Amino acid sequence: MSGELFGPIFVPERFREAVSGGAWLRAMLEAEGALARAGARAGVVPPEAAEEISRRCRELELDPEELGERGRAAGNPVPALVKELTAAVPGEAARHVHRGATSQDITDTAAMLISREALGLILRELDGVCAACARLAEEHRETLVAGRTLLQQALPTTFGLKAAGWLVAALEARRVLREARERGLAAQLGGAAGTLASLGERGTRVLREYARLLALPEPALPWHAARFRVAELGGALALAAGTLHKVALDVILMAQTEVGEAAEPSGGGRGGSSTLPHKRNPILSVVASANARRVQDLARTLYGSLAQEHERAAGAWHAEWEALSGALALTGGAAAAVREALEGLEVRPGRMAENLAVTEGLILAENVTTLAAERLGRLEAHELVEAACRRVAEGGGTLREEILAEPRLREALSEEEIEGALDPARYLGAADEFVDRALEMYRREGQR
Amino acid sequence: MSGELFGPIFVPERFREAVSGGAWLRAMLEAEGALARAGARAGVVPPEAAEEISRRCRELELDPEELGERGRAAGNPVPALVKELTAAVPGEAARHVHRGATSQDITDTAAMLISREALGLILRELDGVCAACARLAEEHRETLVAGRTLLQQALPTTFGLKAAGWLVAALEARRVLREARERGLAAQLGGAAGTLASLGERGTRVLREYARLLALPEPALPWHAARFRVAELGGALALAAGTLHKVALDVILMAQTEVGEAAEPSGGGRGGSSTLPHKRNPILSVVASANARRVQDLARTLYGSLAQEHERAAGAWHAEWEALSGALALTGGAAAAVREALEGLEVRPGRMAENLAVTEGLILAENVTTLAAERLGRLEAHELVEAACRRVAEGGGTLREEILAEPRLREALSEEEIEGALDPARYLGAADEFVDRALEMYRREGQR
Amino acid sequence: MSGELFGPIFVPERFREAVSGGAWLRAMLEAEGALARAGARAGVVPPEAAEEISRRCRELELDPEELGERGRAAGNPVPALVKELTAAVPGEAARHVHRGATSQDITDTAAMLISREALGLILRELDGVCAACARLAEEHRETLVAGRTLLQQALPTTFGLKAAGWLVAALEARRVLREARERGLAAQLGGAAGTLASLGERGTRVLREYARLLALPEPALPWHAARFRVAELGGALALAAGTLHKVALDVILMAQTEVGEAAEPSGGGRGGSSTLPHKRNPILSVVASANARRVQDLARTLYGSLAQEHERAAGAWHAEWEALSGALALTGGAAAAVREALEGLEVRPGRMAENLAVTEGLILAENVTTLAAERLGRLEAHELVEAACRRVAEGGGTLREEILAEPRLREALSEEEIEGALDPARYLGAADEFVDRALEMYRREGQR
Amino acid sequence: MSGELFGPIFVPERFREAVSGGAWLRAMLEAEGALARAGARAGVVPPEAAEEISRRCRELELDPEELGERGRAAGNPVPALVKELTAAVPGEAARHVHRGATSQDITDTAAMLISREALGLILRELDGVCAACARLAEEHRETLVAGRTLLQQALPTTFGLKAAGWLVAALEARRVLREARERGLAAQLGGAAGTLASLGERGTRVLREYARLLALPEPALPWHAARFRVAELGGALALAAGTLHKVALDVILMAQTEVGEAAEPSGGGRGGSSTLPHKRNPILSVVASANARRVQDLARTLYGSLAQEHERAAGAWHAEWEALSGALALTGGAAAAVREALEGLEVRPGRMAENLAVTEGLILAENVTTLAAERLGRLEAHELVEAACRRVAEGGGTLREEILAEPRLREALSEEEIEGALDPARYLGAADEFVDRALEMYRREGQR
Repeated sequence: MSGELFGPIFVPERFREAVSGGAWLRAMLEAEGALARAGARAGVVPPEAAEEISRRCRELELDPEELGERGRAAGNPVPALVKELTAAVPGEAARHVHRGATSQDITDTAAMLISREALGLILRELDGVCAACARLAEEHRETLVAGRTLLQQALPTTFGLKAAGWLVAALEARRVLREARERGLAAQLGGAAGTLASLGERGTRVLREYARLLALPEPALPWHAARFRVAELGGALALAAGTLHKVALDVILMAQTEVGEAAEPSGGGRGGSSTLPHKRNPILSVVASANARRVQDLARTLYGSLAQEHERAAGAWHAEWEALSGALALTGGAAAAVREALEGLEVRPGRMAENLAVTEGLILAENVTTLAAERLGRLEAHELVEAACRRVAEGGGTLREEILAEPRLREALSEEEIEGALDPARYLGAADEFVDRALEMYRREGQR
Repeated sequence: MSGELFGPIFVPERFREAVSGGAWLRAMLEAEGALARAGARAGVVPPEAAEEISRRCRELELDPEELGERGRAAGNPVPALVKELTAAVPGEAARHVHRGATSQDITDTAAMLISREALGLILRELDGVCAACARLAEEHRETLVAGRTLLQQALPTTFGLKAAGWLVAALEARRVLREARERGLAAQLGGAAGTLASLGERGTRVLREYARLLALPEPALPWHAARFRVAELGGALALAAGTLHKVALDVILMAQTEVGEAAEPSGGGRGGSSTLPHKRNPILSVVASANARRVQDLARTLYGSLAQEHERAAGAWHAEWEALSGALALTGGAAAAVREALEGLEVRPGRMAENLAVTEGLILAENVTTLAAERLGRLEAHELVEAACRRVAEGGGTLREEILAEPRLREALSEEEIEGALDPARYLGAADEFVDRALEMYRREGQR
Repeated sequence: MSGELFGPIFVPERFREAVSGGAWLRAMLEAEGALARAGARAGVVPPEAAEEISRRCRELELDPEELGERGRAAGNPVPALVKELTAAVPGEAARHVHRGATSQDITDTAAMLISREALGLILRELDGVCAACARLAEEHRETLVAGRTLLQQALPTTFGLKAAGWLVAALEARRVLREARERGLAAQLGGAAGTLASLGERGTRVLREYARLLALPEPALPWHAARFRVAELGGALALAAGTLHKVALDVILMAQTEVGEAAEPSGGGRGGSSTLPHKRNPILSVVASANARRVQDLARTLYGSLAQEHERAAGAWHAEWEALSGALALTGGAAAAVREALEGLEVRPGRMAENLAVTEGLILAENVTTLAAERLGRLEAHELVEAACRRVAEGGGTLREEILAEPRLREALSEEEIEGALDPARYLGAADEFVDRALEMYRREGQR
Repeated sequence: MSGELFGPIFVPERFREAVSGGAWLRAMLEAEGALARAGARAGVVPPEAAEEISRRCRELELDPEELGERGRAAGNPVPALVKELTAAVPGEAARHVHRGATSQDITDTAAMLISREALGLILRELDGVCAACARLAEEHRETLVAGRTLLQQALPTTFGLKAAGWLVAALEARRVLREARERGLAAQLGGAAGTLASLGERGTRVLREYARLLALPEPALPWHAARFRVAELGGALALAAGTLHKVALDVILMAQTEVGEAAEPSGGGRGGSSTLPHKRNPILSVVASANARRVQDLARTLYGSLAQEHERAAGAWHAEWEALSGALALTGGAAAAVREALEGLEVRPGRMAENLAVTEGLILAENVTTLAAERLGRLEAHELVEAACRRVAEGGGTLREEILAEPRLREALSEEEIEGALDPARYLGAADEFVDRALEMYRREGQR
């Protein structure tokens, strides 16, 4: 569909490939191969037959679109795949193809294999995001920038602390995705109604070997209609995508023409415009923002699919496949875009300092009041500073000038103290400590 | 991505094609061609140049994936397409390619052309759905079935009225989609910042001709960041998909093994299972249900994209393209599936009658009480009937037997009256009238 | 719940009241009263009884929380309300209370009455939003401002055109809400299973009178499980909220400390901060943004409730009540906030002009190239201007200086022409025309 | 708003109270009290002042609605609360109220305290759900029931295994909520821009003591604009609600009049209908279903709020408060409803057995084929059994009769073997083992 055109814009090739129809089919065949070999280990399939099947599973090449077309009758592609596989396996061995399994066993197991692979790729991008954040936090721990709340300048902070904030959130997102990859997946094998009936007494034995061969956790029970794994995975992706969206949003806001505190790397014509030579669009962050928005709604589909009827759902299950694929690919695309944006981010401390000065010192009024209050009492200090602020806002001088012009304040505070109080670099509180804490967390959780 | 495998299961070929990358590119070229010709009509492009450009737009063949790859730098495929087109147009004419437009003009116009085409296809399916509902309503206006509330039998109704209910909802969905197609679309042309600056004084003239040539409504203003059209279209699709979901859900529930009142058509191995010969999965309705769930969340993405920054959004716009394509294709798939399910629906009046009898008459207790109250007063009637019901529920006879066994009720009502009160066919109220009203509405709104 | 604390922050009292538990109960009683009188007109209820019931419906005062508690057993408050009403009606008349109706008839009709009232209030706010947009568009049709795409300055535009864009979108949102109010509502009356069985042959007669008395459209069929009305209403609210969100977002961005092109009205301590005297938070727009985000998801709940089982849903219907109330109230809150923000908006043309100058003329490079190309050919013109732009970006002079310093350009263009090409006021294309078109649309659709 | 009427239907009083405006205010005051005492421990507030403030925080009673009204100007209720608190604290101590904090510090910390309390209540309900599932799994491990896929009977299973499936999912949901409660929360303290500037060098010391006093984890950094905690909490609630929805859906389906395998407890008029005496609405499950649907969309709002601008968001943060409150309360309501439904669930093994017989044995055809294949070869066995199935479906005898009537099958299998193959109790595979595994998991994870 439209993905062939738009996909490459939002999702790098490796992520598109990881969730492609071909990758799904290979994962399904991997599941069928493991099933045959697990059957052999459990004594329900002759070892040679298992070997034969397993080999064909590795070799068989199927056309996704054709399999899809043929899957329309059954509502999933597995029966057609089993038919092809059976035809490809010679002799008696063919009888043992798909032994004990139902279509959902193969589809769900493939979804888990696909997810493991894609999560690995996403985690690699997130490692890069974390590394870039850590570097920015370290390098800019003394770079002053306006702290902004509700998009209004509030107090000075450092760009290092801003990056440290991104870092901590990215570490959390990484942790959640790691957990999803390491503990959230599971093999699926339950047979037609989740009892493994056709395997008689060997059902759980086959299940154990099947999971082992696929290196997937063995579930306590078949989970045909217990979809917490899929929903939790969706939530993890939505969390990661949203976290990346926050970084992208900050970059977009800093890159505004009037703010100009940062710019994305611009190699290869990126973000440029032939007709508007001055433009430098933050296109990587735009891609991350677009992807993240979509991931939130795809995750909603997965949460909405938790309510499944009886032993297999009539629709909710089927809605998961592409929603999951899309969420994985788009989160990957967002992570790759943010990583690239941060790795090449052009940070402009000069513009940050200029912007910090636009309020003519008002941004530090709180600090002056606190200091003056120690000498004049809180009430008088507050009144005097407020009056000075009002004069600044009405177009008078800078706050420094207005304070120096006020005799009572002048009496209470030395010029040096006033300068100090109006120096943003001296009103940073725990910013530096917080940067250390974030970097310490980064080191602790592995920098890979 | 995974659509190559799963797409064919959920979406018939014609819908996948209508929103394919190729279709998008053709629509973009159609927009570029119309732009050149509009420029000629407005006197800003030499007529021969326009002719040349327009011809190349019809002929040029582009590879969606390649264009997508090249579109990564700009965040959309139009600059690469313009480059290809410019290269394809010989001589001086090439200078007039894309004259006055910005990438978003071409992308948005293409989205509208794609939507018009896909809506046309969806409407054709909905016509079929309406026709099938109307036929079922007419044919089954006397077919008794249990009316069920909260999935409990409540009172008798007719299957004709059930189908009439589907019909009215489908007509409303069709109306909304028709309005979306006829009034909700618009050409897009605003240039880099929505002022058509580079066209000087001829901007609105070009806009008018452009819209006319594309047979799209002319918007009052460029709508680069005013996305009501796209969101409203998303809402219309969500409404249609949800309406189809309701029908699919009813079919799935009626097709339950224990209910057995309807079955989907089963030709071509559909819904069958090789290992479970008794199964007849309502797979068309399952597909409709799966699609509808996804459409709701894709529409959510479109509504979420209403808030766009200034003259062009940094992400929200980009999130629309695939969400819109997906919503169109999946709604089409749901409509096709429901149409097919209803056209071949196997209705089983016998099972409906059997199910209506499972409460042993309790389903009509209300009716007996009403009748008896006229003779015995409300209080006594209520008490006696309730006691009879209790005996039925505790395993006594049918309600008929228990009422006949109660002397006071026996005195008050003739056996004939009791029979009548317990005959579901005589307790249908306005069911028949309502069927007429629905069919009348159908006739009024055009049966196409 | 938490609404008692947070409600007043986001939703003005009149909207909270319009969807309050008390308002719902009054609407339910209004439905019961109309039902009795309709019954009388149709000859199924004695006129005096109807009069008696109707009077009690007007007078009865019920405690929402208590009714809610008692409604837990049935899953809705109507049975408890009917009990109270029956107890309040003296003598034989009590027998005719709720005659022919089911709980859903009363609840759904009340939802429609509530919606009509709340939509009326929202429309009043939207009228105000439209009026404010129209005034801004008219007053600022010559106020230059940077047009921004992807939050980068692109080309000059006017603040009037920006406001005109808001106006057109607000007019569309108003149109959709008006349609919802005028044509999207309907009375609900179907009895226990949608057949009006207990009213015998008078069912549709009662329905007609009932709708007439409530001044609600009469539906073709009862719509217990055909929820297009509710979903469409949700979509209309999501559209309106999203449209308001766009305006709010633009205001927030313009109000940024570094941009400073607009500020919200600040009376009554609004947006201020006691510790940060320079802050002027755009709190009205923040409220609109917060509300709009929530409305999108509440509307999603309503769309998700389209799929309802058989004749009454087991959950999907129940999920609608508070989602609808919330969507109405929050859209109202967003509309009120945006109206207030725009009515008192402090527009700063000076800052707009300053910001337009920050690119040192680069924002108009496109215009210079176009002009020079007529004399020098496209290729040379492009190269020369691009080189000049590069020098500007690298810290040279303004674009004007760099162009004047380039001999070939200097030859081709007079100083006057260069000045003209670099004057943003002369590169506005159709901006003024577009403002006219928007105002014309506003006049046409009624300014109320 | 409408919650006063509908709240009690969906949410028990204890959950409504836990997220009420009053509870929020008390939590905010608790945060202010802890802040003062933490300040004392860190040496920035005189100990007596801290004691004084802390005492007033425990005693002060505030009117939520009034605070809300006053909070409209600032966009949150904290400034008004601080004003009230300051007024209540006598003398010099008043100066130390809210020392070092910003409104968001107090609001976010309150959100965490509210969440901890509500999660505790939800977990108690989930404990009950798990216990009820475990009991049903144990008691019904031999109760046969049809396994249903796509709502068609597939193979036999046991009701014990069905309950075991609910159990495993509920245990996972409980684990996720426990983790959210134990590790997902954190104190919030960052001051106006997240640097704790006004606390000078004592910022992190105050933060540590503040977290300790509130018994909340200390975050690495202030998280004003890093909302992973809130989104993850939303995801956990959506997971729990969706898991409960699955159980509720199964109960609703089993309670269908035509299925009749289970009924909810019916004490206190619950689920009954005065006019329809036979009805037994599964109203608890309906409530759970309605709540779960809404929680999914409220969680979507929280995920959507991950993208927050710079150091404090302009809208996304404000959208969280009621979405979070609602998600907590509605998940609580769903959990309480499902617990109650399961604790009193009326299970009907007789109806389960009857339903299992409706396919006349076809449900076990797979088993006969497998057995016959050992004697006749796969091909012949398959053909013969399929032919027999066809005769059953066409209205012949039961599958048992048709098989006994087929000479080749009769030769290959003894009557005893045929009986065995058609006995659902002998075709349960690993059902019993799976029940053990689920119960073992339950024991391991604590039964509390």
